[in-house]
Amino acid sequence: MEKVKSIPMTLYSYNQEEFKEEEVTLSELEKEGGILHQVGQKNYWLNLDEEDPVLLNRICELFQVHSLVKEDILLKGQRPKIEEYPHHLFIVAKMVYFKEDELMMEQISFILGENYLLTFGETEGDVFDRVRQKLSKEGTEVRSRGIDFLLYQLLDALVEGYYRTLEIMGEKIDVMEDNIMLQADKEEMRDIRSLKKDLLYLHKYAWPLREISSYLSKDDPLFINKETSMYFYDIHSQLMEVIDTIETYRELLSGLMDLSLSSVSYRLNEVMKVLTIISTIFIPLSFIAGVYGMNFKYMPELQSPYGYPLAWASMGAVALGMLYYFKKKKWF
Amino acid sequence: MEKVKSIPMTLYSYNQEEFKEEEVTLSELEKEGGILHQVGQKNYWLNLDEEDPVLLNRICELFQVHSLVKEDILLKGQRPKIEEYPHHLFIVAKMVYFKEDELMMEQISFILGENYLLTFGETEGDVFDRVRQKLSKEGTEVRSRGIDFLLYQLLDALVEGYYRTLEIMGEKIDVMEDNIMLQADKEEMRDIRSLKKDLLYLHKYAWPLREISSYLSKDDPLFINKETSMYFYDIHSQLMEVIDTIETYRELLSGLMDLSLSSVSYRLNEVMKVLTIISTIFIPLSFIAGVYGMNFKYMPELQSPYGYPLAWASMGAVALGMLYYFKKKKWF
Amino acid sequence: MEKVKSIPMTLYSYNQEEFKEEEVTLSELEKEGGILHQVGQKNYWLNLDEEDPVLLNRICELFQVHSLVKEDILLKGQRPKIEEYPHHLFIVAKMVYFKEDELMMEQISFILGENYLLTFGETEGDVFDRVRQKLSKEGTEVRSRGIDFLLYQLLDALVEGYYRTLEIMGEKIDVMEDNIMLQADKEEMRDIRSLKKDLLYLHKYAWPLREISSYLSKDDPLFINKETSMYFYDIHSQLMEVIDTIETYRELLSGLMDLSLSSVSYRLNEVMKVLTIISTIFIPLSFIAGVYGMNFKYMPELQSPYGYPLAWASMGAVALGMLYYFKKKKWF
Amino acid sequence: MEKVKSIPMTLYSYNQEEFKEEEVTLSELEKEGGILHQVGQKNYWLNLDEEDPVLLNRICELFQVHSLVKEDILLKGQRPKIEEYPHHLFIVAKMVYFKEDELMMEQISFILGENYLLTFGETEGDVFDRVRQKLSKEGTEVRSRGIDFLLYQLLDALVEGYYRTLEIMGEKIDVMEDNIMLQADKEEMRDIRSLKKDLLYLHKYAWPLREISSYLSKDDPLFINKETSMYFYDIHSQLMEVIDTIETYRELLSGLMDLSLSSVSYRLNEVMKVLTIISTIFIPLSFIAGVYGMNFKYMPELQSPYGYPLAWASMGAVALGMLYYFKKKKWF
Amino acid sequence: MEKVKSIPMTLYSYNQEEFKEEEVTLSELEKEGGILHQVGQKNYWLNLDEEDPVLLNRICELFQVHSLVKEDILLKGQRPKIEEYPHHLFIVAKMVYFKEDELMMEQISFILGENYLLTFGETEGDVFDRVRQKLSKEGTEVRSRGIDFLLYQLLDALVEGYYRTLEIMGEKIDVMEDNIMLQADKEEMRDIRSLKKDLLYLHKYAWPLREISSYLSKDDPLFINKETSMYFYDIHSQLMEVIDTIETYRELLSGLMDLSLSSVSYRLNEVMKVLTIISTIFIPLSFIAGVYGMNFKYMPELQSPYGYPLAWASMGAVALGMLYYFKKKKWF
Repeated sequence: MEKVKSIPMTLYSYNQEEFKEEEVTLSELEKEGGILHQVGQKNYWLNLDEEDPVLLNRICELFQVHSLVKEDILLKGQRPKIEEYPHHLFIVAKMVYFKEDELMMEQISFILGENYLLTFGETEGDVFDRVRQKLSKEGTEVRSRGIDFLLYQLLDALVEGYYRTLEIMGEKIDVMEDNIMLQADKEEMRDIRSLKKDLLYLHKYAWPLREISSYLSKDDPLFINKETSMYFYDIHSQLMEVIDTIETYRELLSGLMDLSLSSVSYRLNEVMKVLTIISTIFIPLSFIAGVYGMNFKYMPELQSPYGYPLAWASMGAVALGMLYYFKKKKWF
Repeated sequence: MEKVKSIPMTLYSYNQEEFKEEEVTLSELEKEGGILHQVGQKNYWLNLDEEDPVLLNRICELFQVHSLVKEDILLKGQRPKIEEYPHHLFIVAKMVYFKEDELMMEQISFILGENYLLTFGETEGDVFDRVRQKLSKEGTEVRSRGIDFLLYQLLDALVEGYYRTLEIMGEKIDVMEDNIMLQADKEEMRDIRSLKKDLLYLHKYAWPLREISSYLSKDDPLFINKETSMYFYDIHSQLMEVIDTIETYRELLSGLMDLSLSSVSYRLNEVMKVLTIISTIFIPLSFIAGVYGMNFKYMPELQSPYGYPLAWASMGAVALGMLYYFKKKKWF
Repeated sequence: MEKVKSIPMTLYSYNQEEFKEEEVTLSELEKEGGILHQVGQKNYWLNLDEEDPVLLNRICELFQVHSLVKEDILLKGQRPKIEEYPHHLFIVAKMVYFKEDELMMEQISFILGENYLLTFGETEGDVFDRVRQKLSKEGTEVRSRGIDFLLYQLLDALVEGYYRTLEIMGEKIDVMEDNIMLQADKEEMRDIRSLKKDLLYLHKYAWPLREISSYLSKDDPLFINKETSMYFYDIHSQLMEVIDTIETYRELLSGLMDLSLSSVSYRLNEVMKVLTIISTIFIPLSFIAGVYGMNFKYMPELQSPYGYPLAWASMGAVALGMLYYFKKKKWF
Repeated sequence: MEKVKSIPMTLYSYNQEEFKEEEVTLSELEKEGGILHQVGQKNYWLNLDEEDPVLLNRICELFQVHSLVKEDILLKGQRPKIEEYPHHLFIVAKMVYFKEDELMMEQISFILGENYLLTFGETEGDVFDRVRQKLSKEGTEVRSRGIDFLLYQLLDALVEGYYRTLEIMGEKIDVMEDNIMLQADKEEMRDIRSLKKDLLYLHKYAWPLREISSYLSKDDPLFINKETSMYFYDIHSQLMEVIDTIETYRELLSGLMDLSLSSVSYRLNEVMKVLTIISTIFIPLSFIAGVYGMNFKYMPELQSPYGYPLAWASMGAVALGMLYYFKKKKWF
Repeated sequence: MEKVKSIPMTLYSYNQEEFKEEEVTLSELEKEGGILHQVGQKNYWLNLDEEDPVLLNRICELFQVHSLVKEDILLKGQRPKIEEYPHHLFIVAKMVYFKEDELMMEQISFILGENYLLTFGETEGDVFDRVRQKLSKEGTEVRSRGIDFLLYQLLDALVEGYYRTLEIMGEKIDVMEDNIMLQADKEEMRDIRSLKKDLLYLHKYAWPLREISSYLSKDDPLFINKETSMYFYDIHSQLMEVIDTIETYRELLSGLMDLSLSSVSYRLNEVMKVLTIISTIFIPLSFIAGVYGMNFKYMPELQSPYGYPLAWASMGAVALGMLYYFKKKKWF
């Protein structure tokens, strides 16, 4: 028998009266396995934060999970989707959240049975703490309803993760805009691009989520009560807003990109104007000075006592003429 | 019991004969509450301009409003939507208007019951004054019809707000175009961008409104009479025009952006031409002057009496040659 | 009673045998009003080129026109649309034509009854002269058929107006392209933009027209005979071609824009090359001349009789080296 | 009676055993006219390469062609379409082929009757020679099948014309890409634009063709046998490939455009670097030379025997410093 | 009889118990031909890596393949498609894989009969080695199921080829991004363009594949068992992910393009600033030096013992003023 890595698994068992949260091992789970299928007694939520193929294998056997599902859980580049199997409902989604100013995107799989819910994440840390709090409090709606309502609560928290992420991004965009107005440089460009990339992935993950929420609210899926479907519809309309906002932000960023590029053009223009003004004023002056620096034997101007002041006068006239020209052209 | 902030609530009660507008407090409302449900007697419109969770809670209890609706009213980042509940029709929309040259966007929620309409805004000030005037006049259509016609009037005023906003924006675009033709600078760019952003949000809010008007005119919703649905269809076709115009303006602004950027390029070109003409004329001349400023002992030209005039002549020839070249290249 | 402005109204009454065109006043019309409803006798086309709310009001009463229609006729920013009312079919469209090189866009409303057609334009001048000619000739198809065929003829002329407009625009685009190839300047840019704007509006007006023609040819509307609907289908496929052509022209103009901008870039490149060649050749030469213009007491080269020719030789070598470098880089 | 221009008409009459190709005149055709309608005897294909309204009129009378069809044949700016009339099926399409490196686009109309096919082109020359060859050979499929199979063969040849055109364009794009890599100039830009324009029109003509092939393969049209419809489906999937390829080429050309423009930018950058390096090295040197060219009476350096070598040394140091700076900045 | 090129054909015959892989010649195949049609005995997979029209002809006769299919196999520019024929299911797809850093795209045709599968590639080498391994191992799912499951395995391997290709491309994009951040040059631009082109083709081939997988999983096609269709659905959702990723990568590359172009702009700006700073500092200094290099007889400054130091002082003042100006403008 293959050795199973000791991976933390948390089992939440609850009903209206009781609530228990415990770290369980595979063998404990296998013993309790039978209990999980006793309908109507209790609801069970089993959460895994890391994955191990061997452990997964054993859990899947325990819950009669289809082999295609097993492969999908392990394959990380999944598109969010929902699939109905004889013994369970299978959902893959992407959880997003900011962790130390970096966007985390983690795949999470849900397997919903009659009275149990299995969730498989990629790493420790998720967006479900709010739900755990509710679960642990007596009298909350989630305690008095079935396991499908827990699924709703988790998906709701997941979608809220998108909301929060977009809020932070919105603030970043505002800051960027102010920065670009002051001084657009390459750094700014890189930040825009990085945010654009994040939004691209956010869109990629939020878009198919819509299909999931639509399916859950309309197509009367397995293990989902009629009363709960209205709640899934609420998630659906929140997702619509999320997707609209993503689109809006993407257009805002495109606008920022244009603004940043146009700033560079304007500044280049400014730089060139300074160069042009200085050059075109002094080049003719230097030429005049150069002329009277020539060593020809017969240059009548050089001998005249008025030569030097007249040279200055003509240089002054040229300079003023140039300045007048630039003024007229509104160059400064 | 939680203390309720004293927030201005206005209750309009009317039928064909009577019309009353009064500031009410929560307790008055709770007393009158029973009256609100007496069908066929009078129509009631209750308007709140600010929001307070506690107050909202109490009103919702009074009118048997679903808890999901309550959450939606308080959450400000809502996508416009319409939802049918057992006791009422729920609509969220965004009201837009210009206030001191700034675009205001305010969320407004409608709850339509059999003979009452509740509206929840965000701040004081709305686009409904036209409707209030009609309500207060005897003999107007709105007085003689049911509460659904008041909803139509309010939505109509709301859509007209979009029209007016777009009119103002249209004028701004015209002004911008003239400015850019004269002188495109960074300021212009920022204005374009800001207007583009406003249009982006306008589109985001007007687009789902279409679904609302379509639903109201076609899907035979609760509390909406058949005769009124034709009026909602009229709103629908107005919204189509609004959305078309938004699209048109967005394309116009993109065009302005291009025009502005291309102006900068043209101007850079002009600046560079001036620099190039001046430089390429004087640089060779200065070189000639430099040559005859050298101090070699044996420079035959320096001794010749024709040296100086010949130097001038050659410099003149170079300058004219250059000018001819630029003329031929059509640089000025 | 409100005073009615004397606005020219033309009444065309015709059947297979007779045809009469007359200027009518409101009071004459009100007298004749009864006649208009005598089915099967004659067809009546009443055309108004200007609008006056009071006059419109009276006409609408006469023909039992719905109040929403009345508002739509007066509101100028309408989206083209078709609506069926109990007593008539209502169509709003935009008429486009070139008048002295300027694109005119005029709203025109059609009200089709059993044996009458009312048309309301904005200003004098329309694209219907061809139809009037046909009407006045005996034996034409339009004379022998019902009023719905007149509507077809008018819509056909309206769509032909789009065709003609696009033809003129096509020629303009060809001229522009030739101009840009020769010399792209700011003027050209403005012309492109102006044409682009016109196409934008053309698209905005032609697109919903498609829905009208589709409705007329398919949905079996009021007062339209089955045999005529095939003709409306012909209009429909013409409109498809119009819309395709608009799209094509828009893309052509985008291409022209790019071409124009790239021309500017190429030219800037050319300008910079000239500057760079002249500068980089003469700057080192001037430096050499400057060196031997220094007044150090001990400069052996200055005393040598070969100094001056050698200075020239070294300057020539530098110049030739530079030219060779530019030649190799294919700068000219 | 109007005089009819003598326009070449070719009549192909064939069945499994016989095949005859002959030039016919209108009067011969009118005599033979009766024969054309003898079902089951022979198939007739009448081809006209030019058009003359009078001739067309007479032919249309002969074959009972609807007047709307007659107009459509004469109007050259038609959108490809298919229409079913009581006596015939009417198809308009655009034939494309390269003739001496220029893209030819010619409108061609098909009228399919029970045992005859009329084709009207614009000028001499078409893409049907392959079909004519097959027709003239005994034992080919086209000889043994009905007139609808001939229509298939002609449309197939027409679509193959699109394929060939795209092949040639594909090669042109490859050549362009290589050219741009070496040297992007204005000529290249014009070629890209011209090809882009051709693709635009190709798309405009190929896209509605899809509707034709779809109609022929699915909607069970008049005079088309069930067995032939599978062949039309084959044309349909070929058209899908044609349209995909057009899209691909358009994107490739957009990419080339960007590449070409970016090349110009890179080259401008190169040009500016050369100017900047030369200028910034020699300008300070010239300044030093200028300083010691001043004629102040008291300049100690000028008197020192080390002055001149030290001046050179300092100039060398400045030049090397600059070169080191540019090296460090990776400017060359 | 035409001579048949000796092209390697591999015949895999297997059932749950046996597996045989052998090189076969056409004549052997013709002998065995009868066996192939014995239903239920064994499954046969015949693979050809090259194509020869004559050989293909003979094989098609042997398996009663429709003539349109034969043409499609030989024509290389096919759009991926699925077609049902009386005796077989026909699929064309494109196989993609990286071979020595170059993207290979090869057309592959599948013909599925009741117990045989024919595959026709273009060149040696494919992405099916994984499937061959599974086939050769006893006890694998592919051995115990019908020939439709082999088709699934092959299509699965084909889609995995797209996955792997995209993975490699993803890494390339990351490398490119890093490179562009450091130093964007023309080479980078070419690489972006080349990858963009590859993605364009990948999209062109993956998009219609979706229709194939959708058809196989939904439309209950010939020779596909109900149980296998779920597996084809799995391919379908993988393809959705592939297409999403292609889109994402295309947008990422567009972003890189912009970044690269903007880098060039920034750098041009930097270059121009260096030129401008050096020029505008030294041009006035050189002018001063030029003035005192003039040879006027009466220039009081030249005689003064403080002239030279004062000249330096004034030059220093100008230089510092300029530097202060640039500092204030934040040019360095």
